[in-house]
Amino acid sequence: MEEIDPTLISHIGIAVRDLETSVKAYRLLTGIEPVIHDVPDQKVRVAMFGSEPDQSRIELVAPTATDSPIASYLERKGEGLHHICIYVTDIESKLGELRASGVKLIDDVPRIGADGHPIAFVHPSGGHGVLIELEQRP
Amino acid sequence: MEEIDPTLISHIGIAVRDLETSVKAYRLLTGIEPVIHDVPDQKVRVAMFGSEPDQSRIELVAPTATDSPIASYLERKGEGLHHICIYVTDIESKLGELRASGVKLIDDVPRIGADGHPIAFVHPSGGHGVLIELEQRP
Repeated sequence: MEEIDPTLISHIGIAVRDLETSVKAYRLLTGIEPVIHDVPDQKVRVAMFGSEPDQSRIELVAPTATDSPIASYLERKGEGLHHICIYVTDIESKLGELRASGVKLIDDVPRIGADGHPIAFVHPSGGHGVLIELEQRP
Repeated sequence: MEEIDPTLISHIGIAVRDLETSVKAYRLLTGIEPVIHDVPDQKVRVAMFGSEPDQSRIELVAPTATDSPIASYLERKGEGLHHICIYVTDIESKLGELRASGVKLIDDVPRIGADGHPIAFVHPSGGHGVLIELEQRP
């Protein structure tokens, strides 16, 4: 019998223009008080709804500078779903497996994400239009 | 102390053109074998990755007819993230709460979803660009 991992999705990232008004909307939708913090190297401020590792979380991401990657995303696409982050048991071996299958990667080697765990992005072509972030299961 | 509900997100819906090729991609990404079934009244075939109620699941949704709502979505937007479905404890009271806050609803009253639970859609304006489905927690 297949063993069920406790959580499949680490979080879903949603690009928003203004953190304050979007936090109000998602507080109302989820009934949850988010944890808010800055990610200076990405020039974003994020609000996390839900508790790792029990829950897949909702991450609202707002730019803190006009040259933030999220600012250019908002300009091109507007507010909305930005990426999904999937837990993997062994990120190095998963990247190797994807590469061997011809899947286009954004990060060829893992880097350390905002949560302090190794992460890597897969090109949206590999996720049928969805930007996929892989995260080493904590 | 706030009690943590086991799962916040029921599933994430991803619109895809072809179920077979996209199932291959997500089987590779997640390492999970999906459950596939038809939803005749929506004219879609879906593949569910993950196990309710322990995991938030990934749902690939492909049209089975040219007049399926997903077919017109694909024509307008292409493949990609389509909606997120959030569990709520009491869907009737949540809809009342949202209505009282001026949030635009697609479904004013719950209807029975593909999983057999009451569901209702909130207009993307209420989710900052994200189509939100609410589902009565099983």
